Amino acid sequence: MSQAPKRAVVLLSGGLDSTTCAYLARSEGFEVLALSFDYGQRLKRELVSARKVAEAVEASEHVIMTFDLRRFGGSALTADIPVPLGRTMHEIGEGIPVTYVPGRNAIFLSFGLSFAEARGAEALFIGVNALDSSGYPDCRPEFIDAFQDVARLGTRVGTQGQAVRIVTPLVALTKAEIVKLGIAAGVDHSLTWSCYIGGDEPCGECDACLLRAKGFADAAVVDPLVTRR
Amino acid sequence: MSQAPKRAVVLLSGGLDSTTCAYLARSEGFEVLALSFDYGQRLKRELVSARKVAEAVEASEHVIMTFDLRRFGGSALTADIPVPLGRTMHEIGEGIPVTYVPGRNAIFLSFGLSFAEARGAEALFIGVNALDSSGYPDCRPEFIDAFQDVARLGTRVGTQGQAVRIVTPLVALTKAEIVKLGIAAGVDHSLTWSCYIGGDEPCGECDACLLRAKGFADAAVVDPLVTRR
Repeated sequence: MSQAPKRAVVLLSGGLDSTTCAYLARSEGFEVLALSFDYGQRLKRELVSARKVAEAVEASEHVIMTFDLRRFGGSALTADIPVPLGRTMHEIGEGIPVTYVPGRNAIFLSFGLSFAEARGAEALFIGVNALDSSGYPDCRPEFIDAFQDVARLGTRVGTQGQAVRIVTPLVALTKAEIVKLGIAAGVDHSLTWSCYIGGDEPCGECDACLLRAKGFADAAVVDPLVTRR
Repeated sequence: MSQAPKRAVVLLSGGLDSTTCAYLARSEGFEVLALSFDYGQRLKRELVSARKVAEAVEASEHVIMTFDLRRFGGSALTADIPVPLGRTMHEIGEGIPVTYVPGRNAIFLSFGLSFAEARGAEALFIGVNALDSSGYPDCRPEFIDAFQDVARLGTRVGTQGQAVRIVTPLVALTKAEIVKLGIAAGVDHSLTWSCYIGGDEPCGECDACLLRAKGFADAAVVDPLVTRR
């Protein structure tokens, strides 16, 4: 008698981290349910990557949930605030940048929780990482722990002792480790997209591009997105 | 020198509980920012009520955030599952009903958190109540406490020691007490809508109608929506 594969929802932006999560979930034997967000972000290029990655990991479903966080604004990604360019790693490491979107990961995780409960998925993968990171408060392990309590206490499955498990395989890794882990898991990095600015090619100057470049450099791996230039 | 009024986001479905919350927030001196959700729910009638209530409490802003939870389903309110009718109070009190929407209040609170942080609001009102309630796990005080930790740990203002405060003035009240509190706060109950089914008039048989009827009966108050029949 064959057993139905266990299911995991993967929050998939199409960036380096979430893509690595999707491959890891698949390599752990999960049927992947991919969930992406068209939330009014500055560019939609990342959703093209998310679509390609969902196909690459053979996601059984890929939902793009649409809503408009520009109604609230308060971020360089959702309002008319310039994205900082050309910052040093020291500057990137200081404080919470203007690209922080208020409450974003709580919103994303809540939708992920809803999707997971509705489909009977036992795990919810999110590619937060607190090292070499953006400085976002909603990428820290203490935030994830708090959200795990939300999943335990605020859902039907949670009250039945089967809370959706929030899985953060990258939380304690550097970007270089994420690059190497991705290669080991079969990630095709040419499918991913990290840049906040967009266009046909990454800008190379926003925090997301700089963190990505540092990750590939430290891993001594060539970023296929950059070699295409 | 005049002081800017303090601001509160109020999650406003247009039902009895959230409407009472909106009036309470205003009577406590808050500038009300109303937030409603067009999430693919079975009927949109409640959004008409939300609009009227937002006007009645002179909300400085009323955002209706739109997304489609029918993509996930898993509830009688968002999928093709019948809403139970004519249940006894004993039946209503047992377990979690099929009208539970997976993760809904986590999603609503997360959007409320985002709105509050983006506008510098200090409080986020939600009309959950655990007595005479629907049996939803995401209306219980322990869930709200967990979400308060999310607000504290997952936002910029939270890390600055000024977390948005989740306010649940109705959490320990019976429906009858909510009716009476609402009257004292000036609530016009004819503006509200509770029924899950809709149409021009409340069905009188769904759990929401039955709980509302019990509340008005126990308070010895006539429900203006019912006298109109």
